Amino acid sequence: MTKNVLILPGDGIGPEIVAQAVRVLDAVNAQFSLNIVHESALVGGSAYDETGSPLPEATLAKAKAADAILLGAVGGPKWDKLDMSVRPEKGLLGLRSNLELFSNLRPAILYPQLADASSLKPEIVAGLDILIVRELTGGIYFGQPRGIRTLENGEREGYNTYVYSESEIRRIGRSAFEAARLRDKRVCSIDKSNVLEVTVLWKEVMEEVAKEYPDVELTHMLVDNAAMQLVRAPKQFDVMVTGNMFGDILSDAAAMLTGSIGMLPSASLNAEGRGMYEPCHGSAPDIAGKGIANPLATILSVAMMLRYSLDSESAADAIEAAVSNVLDLGLRTADIASKGCETISTQAMGDAVLKAL
Amino acid sequence: MTKNVLILPGDGIGPEIVAQAVRVLDAVNAQFSLNIVHESALVGGSAYDETGSPLPEATLAKAKAADAILLGAVGGPKWDKLDMSVRPEKGLLGLRSNLELFSNLRPAILYPQLADASSLKPEIVAGLDILIVRELTGGIYFGQPRGIRTLENGEREGYNTYVYSESEIRRIGRSAFEAARLRDKRVCSIDKSNVLEVTVLWKEVMEEVAKEYPDVELTHMLVDNAAMQLVRAPKQFDVMVTGNMFGDILSDAAAMLTGSIGMLPSASLNAEGRGMYEPCHGSAPDIAGKGIANPLATILSVAMMLRYSLDSESAADAIEAAVSNVLDLGLRTADIASKGCETISTQAMGDAVLKAL
Ligand SMILES: CC(C)[C@H](C(=O)O)[C@@H](O)C(=O)O
Ligand SMILES: CC(C)[C@H](C(=O)O)[C@@H](O)C(=O)O
Repeated sequence: MTKNVLILPGDGIGPEIVAQAVRVLDAVNAQFSLNIVHESALVGGSAYDETGSPLPEATLAKAKAADAILLGAVGGPKWDKLDMSVRPEKGLLGLRSNLELFSNLRPAILYPQLADASSLKPEIVAGLDILIVRELTGGIYFGQPRGIRTLENGEREGYNTYVYSESEIRRIGRSAFEAARLRDKRVCSIDKSNVLEVTVLWKEVMEEVAKEYPDVELTHMLVDNAAMQLVRAPKQFDVMVTGNMFGDILSDAAAMLTGSIGMLPSASLNAEGRGMYEPCHGSAPDIAGKGIANPLATILSVAMMLRYSLDSESAADAIEAAVSNVLDLGLRTADIASKGCETISTQAMGDAVLKAL
Repeated sequence: MTKNVLILPGDGIGPEIVAQAVRVLDAVNAQFSLNIVHESALVGGSAYDETGSPLPEATLAKAKAADAILLGAVGGPKWDKLDMSVRPEKGLLGLRSNLELFSNLRPAILYPQLADASSLKPEIVAGLDILIVRELTGGIYFGQPRGIRTLENGEREGYNTYVYSESEIRRIGRSAFEAARLRDKRVCSIDKSNVLEVTVLWKEVMEEVAKEYPDVELTHMLVDNAAMQLVRAPKQFDVMVTGNMFGDILSDAAAMLTGSIGMLPSASLNAEGRGMYEPCHGSAPDIAGKGIANPLATILSVAMMLRYSLDSESAADAIEAAVSNVLDLGLRTADIASKGCETISTQAMGDAVLKAL
């Protein structure tokens, strides 16, 4: 049976890095006879420029029909002054919510070959391997009411709503526990239950979910402490599960612990395991078009896609092995450049991975 | 004129560390003829145990009458199961809001003597000196409506409201710009304006405030990026200004960059500069009563109190010099213990500071 992949290059460095990832996808498709077909569509700022919407109907329809989506990145200063309703980010948020991609898996892994890139001491991060499971379609990102209103006294007030229902918490909790079962069987749930009622409910429901997974250990940590512990001793964590906003902050901090955010892929899954795959990093408009961006996070996102949505574990393994190989050869893009290694272009990195395959 | 200081030891290690800080306060009071008198009151879990409220009327009345407040820390597992309305944290939050202590100053400074304690590479953190200015009486901490309700379909939903008015943003903005004027004249305002309307207003008002301070540079950064940049290159910042929740997370991360959160004081000020002073760290119930907690953050909070609320700059300087002296002598509490240094008790650390004065 044919599998449909939708390619969404997006903005900034998106098109460049996605181009390399598509070459890799094509290569494993042939090599492993995966029967994958793909087409492209517009999203983000480039979609707004072309159609007036960051998520055109046509793109959404294709996304709904696809078995998996590969996204580059969206956004850039060019669109910063637009009304929030049509900003590039709305394209991304619209995809997440329309496709119910509630479970965002963000691994933070330190590649031994890149240990030097971290700003942390080697003994603190060597062997780091954490998985952040972030709720992606609820919380304050989508809560109503929201907006900016004028008060009776004439001054304006901005407001957003942080809201979670039991069922939303339960399903992301299960995602986290399932993921932990394939790892070290430890889930740490992050909340601010000493201040925010919504996270009191979060904590309670996590306790309930934990009963379904007696083989997995559940602990709780306050978000401020979690931010500290990530800096102090990140290896204490296996799986961290948290809401949309805290997950946004903590997953970026965790990714940066590795010093090589250009290496980290992510998956956003719905209840059936269909998903959208994208690098953890952003659209990096400052280096867009220069041919120096690191395509490896996007290439590794292809591997995640093959594993989670396209049932092609061996192709995923092959890509990951090829990437590791390329690092062993001392090839680096500028963001992970290091003494004694060769700094190469986006395209040359794509070539190297293809060759290693 | 007599100055009244209210001492609130609180819970956990609070009483131990505050006891040493009060000895230091008494010493400079005598030495510099400051005319300070002080009394103590209950707050937090210990107040709840005694009176049924984490912020008894008597404590609040004394707090309102005081020229400055010195707080230890509140909270502990003993009170974790209590209803949110009477938890120890409510005592702290009640003080902040009743006294309108909207401006929370949290310096993250790396003491050269403690450079090794950081989990970050020395070149990343050497000389680190950032000030986080956190809004403390608004935002999602206090926003209404809030709670847990049952939906029509029978499931529960938790909700909180993230809200800021222009005037609330303006006054914390001014705090940050004023603070920056005494430092490197750079303010970085942290928001999530690509997703949250309340922070769109935040960003706008910061731009307005910046016009009043043409000598200070204003930049903006998204909160997820800020969490990354703190890990990657924290020395890029001078003053960071942000809301209550983001400030809670980022200031703890920033404090932990130094590796010695037991050294960091904080001030929470109202519009007239009256304030509450407390260590950045928590009540550490696991080591309470053992006499090993680090009293230096609380002692340095006394210095901040003398400087900001009691107009006694030279006494503040004397305390800070004494602390630096003690570190030079190689004296350390357990949390900052290091090879070649002597590990001493809470009380012995108090003795050492007194001797150095
Ligand atoms: C672009 C932005 C809306 C997005 C988010 O905040 O979720 C990004 O930061 C991310 O983490 O994927
Ligand atoms: C104890 C808690 C309510 C408090 C907060 O979240 O503000 C603490 O974490 C702090 O930062 O002072």
